[in-house]
Amino acid sequence: MHLTLIGIGTGNPEHLTLQAIRAMNAQDLILIPNKGAGKDDLAQLRRDICDEVITNAETRIAEFELPVRDPSTPDYRKRVDDWHDAIAEVWQAEIDAHGTSKKVALLVWGDPSLYDSTLRIAARLDPAPKIEVIPGITSLQALTAAHATVLNEIGAPFIVTTGRRLRDEGWPSGVDTVAIMLDAGGSFDAINPTGVHIWWGAYVGMKEETIIQGPLSDVAEQINTTREELRADHGWIMDIYLLRKS
Amino acid sequence: MHLTLIGIGTGNPEHLTLQAIRAMNAQDLILIPNKGAGKDDLAQLRRDICDEVITNAETRIAEFELPVRDPSTPDYRKRVDDWHDAIAEVWQAEIDAHGTSKKVALLVWGDPSLYDSTLRIAARLDPAPKIEVIPGITSLQALTAAHATVLNEIGAPFIVTTGRRLRDEGWPSGVDTVAIMLDAGGSFDAINPTGVHIWWGAYVGMKEETIIQGPLSDVAEQINTTREELRADHGWIMDIYLLRKS
Ligand SMILES: C[S@@+](CC[C@H](N)C(=O)[O-])C[C@H]1O[C@@H](n2cnc3c(N)ncnc32)[C@H](O)[C@@H]1O
Ligand SMILES: C[S@@+](CC[C@H](N)C(=O)[O-])C[C@H]1O[C@@H](n2cnc3c(N)ncnc32)[C@H](O)[C@@H]1O
Repeated sequence: MHLTLIGIGTGNPEHLTLQAIRAMNAQDLILIPNKGAGKDDLAQLRRDICDEVITNAETRIAEFELPVRDPSTPDYRKRVDDWHDAIAEVWQAEIDAHGTSKKVALLVWGDPSLYDSTLRIAARLDPAPKIEVIPGITSLQALTAAHATVLNEIGAPFIVTTGRRLRDEGWPSGVDTVAIMLDAGGSFDAINPTGVHIWWGAYVGMKEETIIQGPLSDVAEQINTTREELRADHGWIMDIYLLRKS
Repeated sequence: MHLTLIGIGTGNPEHLTLQAIRAMNAQDLILIPNKGAGKDDLAQLRRDICDEVITNAETRIAEFELPVRDPSTPDYRKRVDDWHDAIAEVWQAEIDAHGTSKKVALLVWGDPSLYDSTLRIAARLDPAPKIEVIPGITSLQALTAAHATVLNEIGAPFIVTTGRRLRDEGWPSGVDTVAIMLDAGGSFDAINPTGVHIWWGAYVGMKEETIIQGPLSDVAEQINTTREELRADHGWIMDIYLLRKS
């Protein structure tokens, strides 16, 4: 079997690359989760993308139920590992159910390399498929595009890390620019805001896109309030931000 | 004036997003440099991309001569600043020469947020244009896609920095994963290779794509030799790599 992981961008159907569209049309089977971070909204978005760009009548779409993590498993690593095992089993069952599929694809949110476990889960399939990856626009790029700003100063480094790490470990050493993903909410409250600028965005690239930027001390509260309101309105939220010390 | 910076990906014309194609077709004028990192090859690639996707007969393409840095300016920052001033002047002259252009675009290699100064140069234009940014596939994503690998371990951070910094400052503190761009050649030779894995790629996403991966101690020499040969063959090279400590 040949498995293609196709980065689809972060919610704007126009984030699709020509390469992604060609790859989608080259498949026997495309698996899409009918649940996910944004629940029904994001599943619908994947369906819409398929409807829009797939012109190959031979390409079948199969939806699968994404297993959930078992909250009773105390160890974080084991909880994630077990979850990945369970997802691999569901994929395997879907692939086997469509016995003749030689070319199978998964649509990956953003880019498959960035805080995504599709490659790790695919490594559990048996027999091991030949794997191909199609890059996609990441939420980080959708964020900087929305703000018309850059990731780094000239010749300077930047770090990409999680909300949890910023909260637990503070500002990473050796860098003036930090991009934060996977924040359960307002982890920037844990750092000293003096001299820090923030570029924040929720639903970046999507119709619901909401962005705020400014000195962290001025806008932190506004971001936290906006985030809560948006989450209440939509039932889910995905946000990302860039912090820079001047 | 309305200025759009359009990320075009890293050399594969199929890296273009639907958003980029739509934006290109919405312009009065698209400025493309007739020289650049890869000299004629890359200028030709931009022309080919325009030929391929622009269907709007009203969209004009203007090539401009990219100024070069003045090597006699000793201070690095001043050298870069002067260079950016000079580029802004050339853009301004081109835009003025096509007097009626209300919508102008620049095609940016990869993504405009990643080690790219187009936004900084655009900020020098007078009167200040309204700026819009269209994200593009970066060389970092083209690299990880080519190797079918990920940027980060589960929940772990990564840093993106330059060859010069790796050479001068050594392995950045607090991270196990480092992505290196803008390397003048083999800066990984400056670090202790024990326990470090490298995923290296030249011309990623392009027809000339060449990738090598393995324990750094095993493949460093092969990468350096390959890099020299490729550079001699093509007359130019762009490479990028990911290092991970296990
Ligand atoms: C599991 S990671 C997947 C990232 C994805 N592979 C990418 O390339 O962007 C999910 C995190 O990405 C960020 N994210 C993804 N899509 C987003 C969007 N449209 N708006 C804001 N943040 C987003 C959020 O930080 C979220 O917690
Ligand atoms: C001035 S930066 C521009 C980066 C670009 N904005 C991006 O998003 O990839 C140039 C550096 O990007 C990397 N790069 C760009 N295109 C590349 C390619 N096709 N193959 C390998 N490296 C590339 C190299 O490290 C090169 O030194």
